Amino acid sequence: MSSTPEGGTAFELHATDPCSRARAGTLLTRRGPVTTPVFMPVGTQGTVKAASPDELKALGAQVILGNTYHLHVRPGEGVIARLGGLHRFAAWDRPILTDSGGFQVFSLAKLRKITPEGVHFQNHLDGTPTFIGPDRSMEIQRDLGSDIVMAFDECPPHPCPRDEAARSLELTLSWEARSLAWWEQNPGDNRPLVFGIVQGSSYADLRERSARALVQMGFDGYAIGGVSVGEPEEEMMAAVEASEPFLPADKPRYAMGLGTPPQMIEMVARGVDMFDCVLPTRLARNGTAFTAAGTMALKNAEYAEDPRPIEEGCGCPACAQFTRAYIRHLIKAEEILGLRLITLHNLHFYVGLLNRARKEILAGSFAGFRKTFVAGYAKRPEPVQTGRDFR
Amino acid sequence: MSSTPEGGTAFELHATDPCSRARAGTLLTRRGPVTTPVFMPVGTQGTVKAASPDELKALGAQVILGNTYHLHVRPGEGVIARLGGLHRFAAWDRPILTDSGGFQVFSLAKLRKITPEGVHFQNHLDGTPTFIGPDRSMEIQRDLGSDIVMAFDECPPHPCPRDEAARSLELTLSWEARSLAWWEQNPGDNRPLVFGIVQGSSYADLRERSARALVQMGFDGYAIGGVSVGEPEEEMMAAVEASEPFLPADKPRYAMGLGTPPQMIEMVARGVDMFDCVLPTRLARNGTAFTAAGTMALKNAEYAEDPRPIEEGCGCPACAQFTRAYIRHLIKAEEILGLRLITLHNLHFYVGLLNRARKEILAGSFAGFRKTFVAGYAKRPEPVQTGRDFR
Repeated sequence: MSSTPEGGTAFELHATDPCSRARAGTLLTRRGPVTTPVFMPVGTQGTVKAASPDELKALGAQVILGNTYHLHVRPGEGVIARLGGLHRFAAWDRPILTDSGGFQVFSLAKLRKITPEGVHFQNHLDGTPTFIGPDRSMEIQRDLGSDIVMAFDECPPHPCPRDEAARSLELTLSWEARSLAWWEQNPGDNRPLVFGIVQGSSYADLRERSARALVQMGFDGYAIGGVSVGEPEEEMMAAVEASEPFLPADKPRYAMGLGTPPQMIEMVARGVDMFDCVLPTRLARNGTAFTAAGTMALKNAEYAEDPRPIEEGCGCPACAQFTRAYIRHLIKAEEILGLRLITLHNLHFYVGLLNRARKEILAGSFAGFRKTFVAGYAKRPEPVQTGRDFR
Repeated sequence: MSSTPEGGTAFELHATDPCSRARAGTLLTRRGPVTTPVFMPVGTQGTVKAASPDELKALGAQVILGNTYHLHVRPGEGVIARLGGLHRFAAWDRPILTDSGGFQVFSLAKLRKITPEGVHFQNHLDGTPTFIGPDRSMEIQRDLGSDIVMAFDECPPHPCPRDEAARSLELTLSWEARSLAWWEQNPGDNRPLVFGIVQGSSYADLRERSARALVQMGFDGYAIGGVSVGEPEEEMMAAVEASEPFLPADKPRYAMGLGTPPQMIEMVARGVDMFDCVLPTRLARNGTAFTAAGTMALKNAEYAEDPRPIEEGCGCPACAQFTRAYIRHLIKAEEILGLRLITLHNLHFYVGLLNRARKEILAGSFAGFRKTFVAGYAKRPEPVQTGRDFR
């Protein structure tokens, strides 16, 4: 199951940092290669909020996310399939990764009833009774045309008692095995990559058990889930550290829903290759920009007459043309162009940061970059954010 | 006063339709020529809602509007002037026309007290006591760096008793004379074009008096105000017909805040050269697109799986890449890209419609175009809209 239809591996490892577990590689999808480490903008409802596909391409986005739960609820995978699949629907011809819907069923939907086969729930829009389990999730992701499919999982809340975490993990493992088996039974002409999701809450032995069991099943890549769900940063790092040693070096690793810029760099140093996060787009809509020196709340009065771009030397479309003062005015006046410009800047920053990490790894200079970047990024209080995409 | 600083006329007339009063010309501003008839997108707060300057240029916008009242209240013309003027602030290097603030003082602000010198009011944002009169309005427009300045006027509501309309007109005429005199006293190096505004409500004799008095003062162009304020379409047409015969052929005419596509074509036939309207951007944000066959409410279920672009054959960025089904999904899901795409389509439609009218006038075929277009545009009920820019 670990080979692509062409018979090659799904992941090429180019370089490993001598001072950490950081790696530079290339993920091979059926829609082309993706260089790693990589940041993938979140397009929950089939659009990266406030951005256009052309803008995303121009800033170098290689992969965008879509969400099984949201797109199933609205407009429905049948509509999308009949219109040619999610790529054509959303005018995006690069790879798409779809989350499985598990996290959203548990974080958004109401009146859930969990059975060994999946979850009965009422959707968050109009309460329509719905069922999603591993088979259904795979069918939906197939109908969407996803290039990187996530196994269906249960994501326990934080904090989670140990017995509850252990029970949840066993259910998730059975769902993940079922997810993978579905693709063996329905391989199609050119099946997508299928990723397993390591769970186990904050318990190191459960994380190990999860990772070992998934590797035994043989996925194309491994995500680390149940992080960025409100836990302290130390626990987030510990959850990755407890999982990563049991994942094979020749497969990609994906930390779901992470994080702040320094968190991502620290995760890269812990061997993670792939990231998605709503922070760059969500904070943009609140008027907050990311810079190498930390976040910048552009509503603040200090920027009222500031003639500088958001970040000096930045090559994004916002910084090329517009001042902090103008963007502040737009945000204060609740004008859409304001959040558009900050969204582009933030995504450019996130995508560029992971590209930079890759270059530093390839050049053998990641350790110095990591130290300098993390130290330079101001430790301002960040809003607590949960990471996998929801509204 | 009617000549530009270069000594030429501010308007070149190229062709007149033999079957109507329609004209094709070129307005000469200090930031370059503007071909007419022309539609000018509305950028009340220093941004055309949901669009970027690059997008506006790509769709052929020649002039955008800014608003004296709004920009004075927030962020203040001083801020904008210190940042290099509105063009640099908003990254727009083509001509800008600014409304004088008169209409907004009367439609938005509270606790007004009118004196011969101007209006005392509390602004609509935080109630700050403010005064704007003709001198102040001209100063603000000078500080913004406007290329086409509007005289300060009072815009009476509809309906308006005759004695009230007559009283208001005399005040407006005195303010307009004062507006023009301000520029004689403060000519600067390269003064903008200054337009008078014909008022007089729905009374033909007052419209005539207004037009004659303004022409006597000698403006660079003449706007027809007090239209698109909720009156029936017949009255709107009558107000223009009562004003236009008294305006000189060698000066541009501008119908403020108009209108629907057929209304604009009918106004072109009545000798109007310049248009602005919030309809294309405002209706876009409600999910409504303009087409040659009438408006299209993209929220409607009939478009749920419609694989066609908004309008077949349209060259706008939305129609080039996206289906009605996708745009409907975006609007239903309240995604910003949806209103961005409809905004671009609608502005492309409006700008293109007036460009088309110009071509038809130059080719001598406007009469046929007018008849075909107006007949083809469905007579669906349009929402009643007042036209000059407010929120």
